[in-house]
Amino acid sequence: MANIAVLGYGVVGSGVVEVIKKNENSISIKAKEKVVVKKILDVRDFADSPDRDLITKNADEIFNDDSISVIAETIGGIGVAYEFTKRALMGKKSVVTSNKELVATHGPELLKMAKENGVHYLFEASVGGGIPIIRPLNQCLAANEIHGVTGILNGTTNYILTQMKKEGKDFEVALKGAQQNGYAEANPTADVEGHDACRKIAILSSIAYNEFVDYRNIYTEGITKITLTDMQYAEAMGSVIKLIALSKRVGDKLFARVSPAMIDKEHPLATVEDVFNAIVVKGDAIGEAMFYGRGAGKLPTASAVVADIIDAVKHVDTSERYIWERKENTSVIDIGDSETKFFVRVIARSKAEAKNFINTTFGEVNFITVNKAELEEEIAFVTSKSKEKDLKAGIDKLKGIGSIKQVVSVIRVEED
Amino acid sequence: MANIAVLGYGVVGSGVVEVIKKNENSISIKAKEKVVVKKILDVRDFADSPDRDLITKNADEIFNDDSISVIAETIGGIGVAYEFTKRALMGKKSVVTSNKELVATHGPELLKMAKENGVHYLFEASVGGGIPIIRPLNQCLAANEIHGVTGILNGTTNYILTQMKKEGKDFEVALKGAQQNGYAEANPTADVEGHDACRKIAILSSIAYNEFVDYRNIYTEGITKITLTDMQYAEAMGSVIKLIALSKRVGDKLFARVSPAMIDKEHPLATVEDVFNAIVVKGDAIGEAMFYGRGAGKLPTASAVVADIIDAVKHVDTSERYIWERKENTSVIDIGDSETKFFVRVIARSKAEAKNFINTTFGEVNFITVNKAELEEEIAFVTSKSKEKDLKAGIDKLKGIGSIKQVVSVIRVEED
Repeated sequence: MANIAVLGYGVVGSGVVEVIKKNENSISIKAKEKVVVKKILDVRDFADSPDRDLITKNADEIFNDDSISVIAETIGGIGVAYEFTKRALMGKKSVVTSNKELVATHGPELLKMAKENGVHYLFEASVGGGIPIIRPLNQCLAANEIHGVTGILNGTTNYILTQMKKEGKDFEVALKGAQQNGYAEANPTADVEGHDACRKIAILSSIAYNEFVDYRNIYTEGITKITLTDMQYAEAMGSVIKLIALSKRVGDKLFARVSPAMIDKEHPLATVEDVFNAIVVKGDAIGEAMFYGRGAGKLPTASAVVADIIDAVKHVDTSERYIWERKENTSVIDIGDSETKFFVRVIARSKAEAKNFINTTFGEVNFITVNKAELEEEIAFVTSKSKEKDLKAGIDKLKGIGSIKQVVSVIRVEED
Repeated sequence: MANIAVLGYGVVGSGVVEVIKKNENSISIKAKEKVVVKKILDVRDFADSPDRDLITKNADEIFNDDSISVIAETIGGIGVAYEFTKRALMGKKSVVTSNKELVATHGPELLKMAKENGVHYLFEASVGGGIPIIRPLNQCLAANEIHGVTGILNGTTNYILTQMKKEGKDFEVALKGAQQNGYAEANPTADVEGHDACRKIAILSSIAYNEFVDYRNIYTEGITKITLTDMQYAEAMGSVIKLIALSKRVGDKLFARVSPAMIDKEHPLATVEDVFNAIVVKGDAIGEAMFYGRGAGKLPTASAVVADIIDAVKHVDTSERYIWERKENTSVIDIGDSETKFFVRVIARSKAEAKNFINTTFGEVNFITVNKAELEEEIAFVTSKSKEKDLKAGIDKLKGIGSIKQVVSVIRVEED
């Protein structure tokens, strides 16, 4: 029998307990021994919960119990979750988690600690909710050199962008709807500013390229400035706007970025809507593979946590462990040195003059038009592919000339 | 060092050798020891191949070589491949394969033999080419009760149907094009009649439901009767026609089927085009997850074979093995007892009379019209959901009445 403890009886933690109970038989067969939740740690009272007898407020009851071999950390954050994870690993208990922030911040230390103590630190649920992606990247695509990872990794922002596109709601209205439906938190910053997606692409990249990619080196931009007008232009270009998290090899360096981007309607990510997530992986042998599903939610996320529990139980002495080394100098190139195309929208005082200036500044551009009376003063165009810093210098020039009243939007156009 | 032998130096076999050579370093890191192809078995001459020194026509050189621990069987078929696989397993060598026919036919015996000899029989490459699906089903979704698996599992037929839809080619022309492009074989029966997809859904189902599903119990229908007119009706219904392989739990029984089906354009499989494959898995915790990628081809398939080689090398003494029991009585319910909707197209002598008869025979139906002069004599409709045997009895009745000249098409409408 394998005894499990769950730290944190919130949405994911209670889901983990529910899934283990519900599928007890099949889980025990897969794990090759009975898997039982012995204790749940939470400081709150749950007098009405069916699990109330398992809940304790005293962490010692768990950490001092040698019969507990695996801990599911579903507390979140990098405070007490960090302390508990270290204590568990030092006490030779494997830890499985959905905590992307902790993995992205302290992954190298925790993986090393797990290895030194002969246990596991597993985090399939930290990216893509229930979508199997960490294990496939690490095992199923092991024969490949991974060239790039591109994903829609945040369900909240994808829901908002879908609502804007399909229902014609503007950002603020769509955000409010997401909050009312429980898809966005009261303080939505981590989602809408891209921080959540940033942690996730950092974790995926660390697995894909087998070196620790620090999320603090990843350029991150949210969706708060995206407007319905931008979406009309995207439509005219045969594209959609998505919050795209990507990383790729560039020579012996890496590049990673989180930002809104226009992607072609034929792109496999273009049809990923609502709260769904999807990740496209490019490998030298496989070409492209995509993984799609619910990126959040109680049971999908619990499904991934429990898969890790089964793995930790099953391979208790034997499984491989990987190590992420922190490098002195990051391999992540600066956003300014990355290549991209910009979609740019300006309000012109004089259209002819402004177009002239745009052409001399950016060389060949594609002008985009949409039929709307109120947009008559606008000029929109897509640049050719260049270094971001050169494009940004061009944008700065636009801002300084008299024939242009305002630069309204600058959105990347992603072709990979 | 792990010595590998490859049986069959065809498309997939030569791809396996290529991938192992190309990504030697990263593969060795993942496998935790150097992975080397020591011998290749093929009866043909390859005087110009860079691998010619490794190629032998004498199987004994491989089977009697105790230093070879893993065999990649990429011969295909159930003749010599079966004999070699048994010989390898009995000789305590793990076998990894892309051979869906052998797995679907002799899987139970071979898995048992592998277990008895303490080695592996792995077949990630047998379904979905390079798409990771067997391992995710078995490991990543281990916390789930799987309710159903629905997929586009054959690239050739998906290419043909895509060409019909997008280019307006009829079946024969599209098939010829597929043959010219190397996507279909000179004898295309196994693909276009659905036999290939049938083997694959049998394997996926055996993994998903943890019991051997014999492909001979799976109703299988190919795409040869699908016409451009059927596609026009599908379009009018907001659907597309795909060759759908599916299985699902029905109470304590199973149902499995391969057939063309109309699926809604919003269905995640609807946008899977050309030679791509995709598999949707439904589990009680995860909801829906989809896996998408290249379902065939030299390097994608080799990528999956090599992932299995790495697993076999890494877990050489330790990994779990599953067993498929052959049951006396199949759990697969008869196609007649399954529930479905039919799209039916008939040519009427008298439209009013025929419609009357249709309504009295099938109860509530939805009549579908498309605007084409030459279809004026046609009536097309979609039945409500009923048992197939009842629907088929209804179709037989239609064939017997005077107001209907001919029943032209009967295609399932799939809503799951």
